[in-house]
Amino acid sequence: MTAYNAPIRDMLFAMKEIGGLPTISALPGNEEVGDDLVGAILEEAGKFAGNVLAPLNQTADRQGCRCVDGVVTTPDGIKEAYIAFRENGWNAMPADAEYGGQGLPALVSTPVLEMWKASNMAFSLCQMLTMGAVSAIAHHGNQEQKATYLPKMVEGAWTGTMNLTEPQAGSDLAAVRTRAVPEGDHYRVTGTKIFITWGENDVAENIIHLVLARLPDAPPGVKGISLFIVPKFLVNADGSLGARNDLVCSSIEHKLGIHGSPTAVMSFGDSGGAIGYLMGEPNRGLEYMFTMMNHARLNVGLEGVAISERAYQQARDYARERVQGRPIGAEAGTPIIGHPDVRRMLLDMKARIDAMRALAYYTAGRMDIAHGHPDERARKEAQALVDLLTPIVKAWCTENSIQIASLGVQVHGGVGFVEETGAAQHYRDARITTIYEGTTAIQANDLVGRKIARDGGAAAAALIALMRASIAEWKGEDEMLLVAQRAEAAVGVLERAVQWILDRHGETPALTAAGAVPFLHLAGIVAGGWLIGKQAAIAARELKGGAADPEFLRSKIALARHYALQVSPHADGYLVAMMDGADNVVEFDLAWF
Amino acid sequence: MTAYNAPIRDMLFAMKEIGGLPTISALPGNEEVGDDLVGAILEEAGKFAGNVLAPLNQTADRQGCRCVDGVVTTPDGIKEAYIAFRENGWNAMPADAEYGGQGLPALVSTPVLEMWKASNMAFSLCQMLTMGAVSAIAHHGNQEQKATYLPKMVEGAWTGTMNLTEPQAGSDLAAVRTRAVPEGDHYRVTGTKIFITWGENDVAENIIHLVLARLPDAPPGVKGISLFIVPKFLVNADGSLGARNDLVCSSIEHKLGIHGSPTAVMSFGDSGGAIGYLMGEPNRGLEYMFTMMNHARLNVGLEGVAISERAYQQARDYARERVQGRPIGAEAGTPIIGHPDVRRMLLDMKARIDAMRALAYYTAGRMDIAHGHPDERARKEAQALVDLLTPIVKAWCTENSIQIASLGVQVHGGVGFVEETGAAQHYRDARITTIYEGTTAIQANDLVGRKIARDGGAAAAALIALMRASIAEWKGEDEMLLVAQRAEAAVGVLERAVQWILDRHGETPALTAAGAVPFLHLAGIVAGGWLIGKQAAIAARELKGGAADPEFLRSKIALARHYALQVSPHADGYLVAMMDGADNVVEFDLAWF
Repeated sequence: MTAYNAPIRDMLFAMKEIGGLPTISALPGNEEVGDDLVGAILEEAGKFAGNVLAPLNQTADRQGCRCVDGVVTTPDGIKEAYIAFRENGWNAMPADAEYGGQGLPALVSTPVLEMWKASNMAFSLCQMLTMGAVSAIAHHGNQEQKATYLPKMVEGAWTGTMNLTEPQAGSDLAAVRTRAVPEGDHYRVTGTKIFITWGENDVAENIIHLVLARLPDAPPGVKGISLFIVPKFLVNADGSLGARNDLVCSSIEHKLGIHGSPTAVMSFGDSGGAIGYLMGEPNRGLEYMFTMMNHARLNVGLEGVAISERAYQQARDYARERVQGRPIGAEAGTPIIGHPDVRRMLLDMKARIDAMRALAYYTAGRMDIAHGHPDERARKEAQALVDLLTPIVKAWCTENSIQIASLGVQVHGGVGFVEETGAAQHYRDARITTIYEGTTAIQANDLVGRKIARDGGAAAAALIALMRASIAEWKGEDEMLLVAQRAEAAVGVLERAVQWILDRHGETPALTAAGAVPFLHLAGIVAGGWLIGKQAAIAARELKGGAADPEFLRSKIALARHYALQVSPHADGYLVAMMDGADNVVEFDLAWF
Repeated sequence: MTAYNAPIRDMLFAMKEIGGLPTISALPGNEEVGDDLVGAILEEAGKFAGNVLAPLNQTADRQGCRCVDGVVTTPDGIKEAYIAFRENGWNAMPADAEYGGQGLPALVSTPVLEMWKASNMAFSLCQMLTMGAVSAIAHHGNQEQKATYLPKMVEGAWTGTMNLTEPQAGSDLAAVRTRAVPEGDHYRVTGTKIFITWGENDVAENIIHLVLARLPDAPPGVKGISLFIVPKFLVNADGSLGARNDLVCSSIEHKLGIHGSPTAVMSFGDSGGAIGYLMGEPNRGLEYMFTMMNHARLNVGLEGVAISERAYQQARDYARERVQGRPIGAEAGTPIIGHPDVRRMLLDMKARIDAMRALAYYTAGRMDIAHGHPDERARKEAQALVDLLTPIVKAWCTENSIQIASLGVQVHGGVGFVEETGAAQHYRDARITTIYEGTTAIQANDLVGRKIARDGGAAAAALIALMRASIAEWKGEDEMLLVAQRAEAAVGVLERAVQWILDRHGETPALTAAGAVPFLHLAGIVAGGWLIGKQAAIAARELKGGAADPEFLRSKIALARHYALQVSPHADGYLVAMMDGADNVVEFDLAWF
């Protein structure tokens, strides 16, 4: 069994210094969000994650879910953990107070969600999907729908799902074929959906499926998709559960990882049509679904941070205990953490995690400002940053997580390849994160097309200006000079890359699409480097002022140095790859493969 | 089920143009190794790999091996495939003619071994370990031992194993505790060994364990280790099988991948001591084992090539069939291979594989020259290259294979995460390759310490001179100018990196150890870039001469361009990482983790 200890100190530092917790706490409606409350929430969440969820991570992985005749059984202990999770109010925590949630800022709920993901990623998906559905109903449902579904879903008695993918369609929602035919005050929904996370389970009293489907007269393509609420059990007028709806889990997938999370094939309408209720207006389903998708993308990016942290803690704990070979210059009996390359691997993991977390929390803080700042301009500027950074957080943090989980295995040597050790599970679990909620290429194309080219590079220019202003301040600290120089160079690389996109996207979109993923890596490296550098600059300043915890602050400076010297330089390689290498990709003859 | 088609055309091109097949065929003793024979061997091996071994890869993975009361059962079909493999002479093929093998050059057996590894990596390990044991006995055994064991092992009736690792020791062989006590003409061996590949199985009539153990009066550390032959069944004077020896498989590991390969925990001497026979002289076991290790390291590097090729073929085949979304500028119904980023991923996989294969085959060709060239100086120069390149082939090809297998999953999107698809298996199987036969860090330290610093950089300088002379020739071809410039710059980066090592290794070995893995990546990128560039230069020259297969040759040029523009530039990042970033690794306080 592998332990998880929520890195509360790192989290609080990133929340305060990068996410802007003092600013967020000062926003209207956040009056109660003081340091004491935040500290207490993180402490309690850390205990639940470490004591309840983390020990189930490996047992659930090994046992997996079962599906017999449409009935899904989750692994031993998961149902009990879910009940405790609900009873402790954790399911409701990220939701709006209006529906029974705690109405906390995104910046405060983000580290808590990170803890669930790190301690038990498969388990955490249930809440994540439910909260996505809550958000969609809250934004687009009518009053009756809100009253019927939200309180039970927020509390966690009922769970929610997103039903997008169909076998023939994959990421291409234009190809959705599921049909919805009007019948009185409802619709009859017929079709098959795949990859439905927690689509059927034994922890919920009812499951509220949000389903993309076409009306009979719908236009073709993405403009003809509507969104329906299709509950597993129909809900009576008094709120009690009524008849079983005509939908069934026909099977669950045998997956590489996240075995504790049932991934269902859902069959709607085998016996005449599942009863569904239209949400919002017809043919606007994709738009509504995207309300959830963007939030979900940030959440999956956060999964990248979380699974990396878990893999890191496991590798570090092993490296501190395992004795093998005498490290250069060390005493006999020194554990393997003394070997230079083990240290390098752990440092690489830790520095990347710190940069990723800073980027995720920074984005969460911008969401709170975009949502609640009294000044409209501040809201708009923050929203532009959220839009720009969302695909970077999603794709870069998840791509990193695969590498970091792989390093976690490597630190263990041969025992890392043995499943009982637990390191391999993170390598398997992490592998889904660059795929679901939009693959890395989808994120990269969103970044290049919608987030950079569409506004003529305005949002990117604003971010670059923010970076430059920030880096200029670091130079006051001597020990920051090298990091500042490297960060400055990296921002220059980002600027050149953005200009390359702007110069080409309109005329040659295939070319910028071929350069999009290298660009995304580049943008992630630079953005992460900026924020880990900022953390170090603040640490350097606090050290001068005689801080209470100098070792922690010194570590932040050393982490930023590692990042500046071992991660940032690769931005240059990605610049060459996109600027000089994209042509060759586009021109490579398909017959040559 | 996923197909495997041996890439014979690519293999023959690399054998001829990079491995130097005409030179190797002209060596004394290789008179029969003509183009016809080589072509016929590759054709037949390709059929066996594609038709017999490849279909069992996934079924064996899913079923796995079982161990009940010390009896291991391999998955359905494996035993029958093994018998066919033996009967077709494939097991014997790489062995010396003296013991019943075909005595083929390494350059010719290498592509055949690549096919076994690609079609069924778990299966291929049985032969690989047996051939390692054959090599050790052939080099260090006495006449009686050779006569007793080699014919049966070469034929494949008996398999062989390497018993190095112990639970407390891992890669640190100095800590080996297994004991061997003399008793008449033999020894009694007692101890526990772990991670014994094919250590117990149901395909062999007998299993010949080579076991590292200590004599009672042995000095401590690696200088007190001897090598013993410990057969599962004792062999009677007439060659028939006698009594069961006192050794048992106490369990097999539950692993992340290579489920078709039983990884045994072997317990020797539970009932008084297993009968073992000393091989060669006492206390020289480690030296003997290294005879096998170096060969095994090249073989594991080749596994990296092979598993990458398999992952590539699977992803390419899927991308050619799957229709989803309309690629930019393409007709509706165009499969996903038309999407620029899918094309980029496949091109990246293919270019890296081509470079890796070239490097592995080049090294195999040098082995043949080192072994059989009439001129002593040529032999020595070739051996120096083999020694230098072995850790690079092993570690760089395997590190790449993890990334390539991961890209293979990514090309599939969501279905890549579903085990039935088969892409995930390669991602799991590849993960062991950077660990066994010496981790990446062990290879990197071997490269930096023994292969570069020990001879004052002489071997590295010779390699760099070879690269420069080769690249200078490319410039005659117009379309090679860019690739040549990039390759030249990359060689300069390698030269600076080598100098950095030479300047520091004696005084600050911890520093060069901290830079060793970044250096290894750098060296692999540069060496691979040299050889893929060389292939392209030859292709360009042949194109001018009006070649029979211009499309194949054009693809080689485009692959080298991709490599030069998207892979080579990262060498610069690794140079900064090692030269500027190693200090920080060494200085990072262990308490900060």
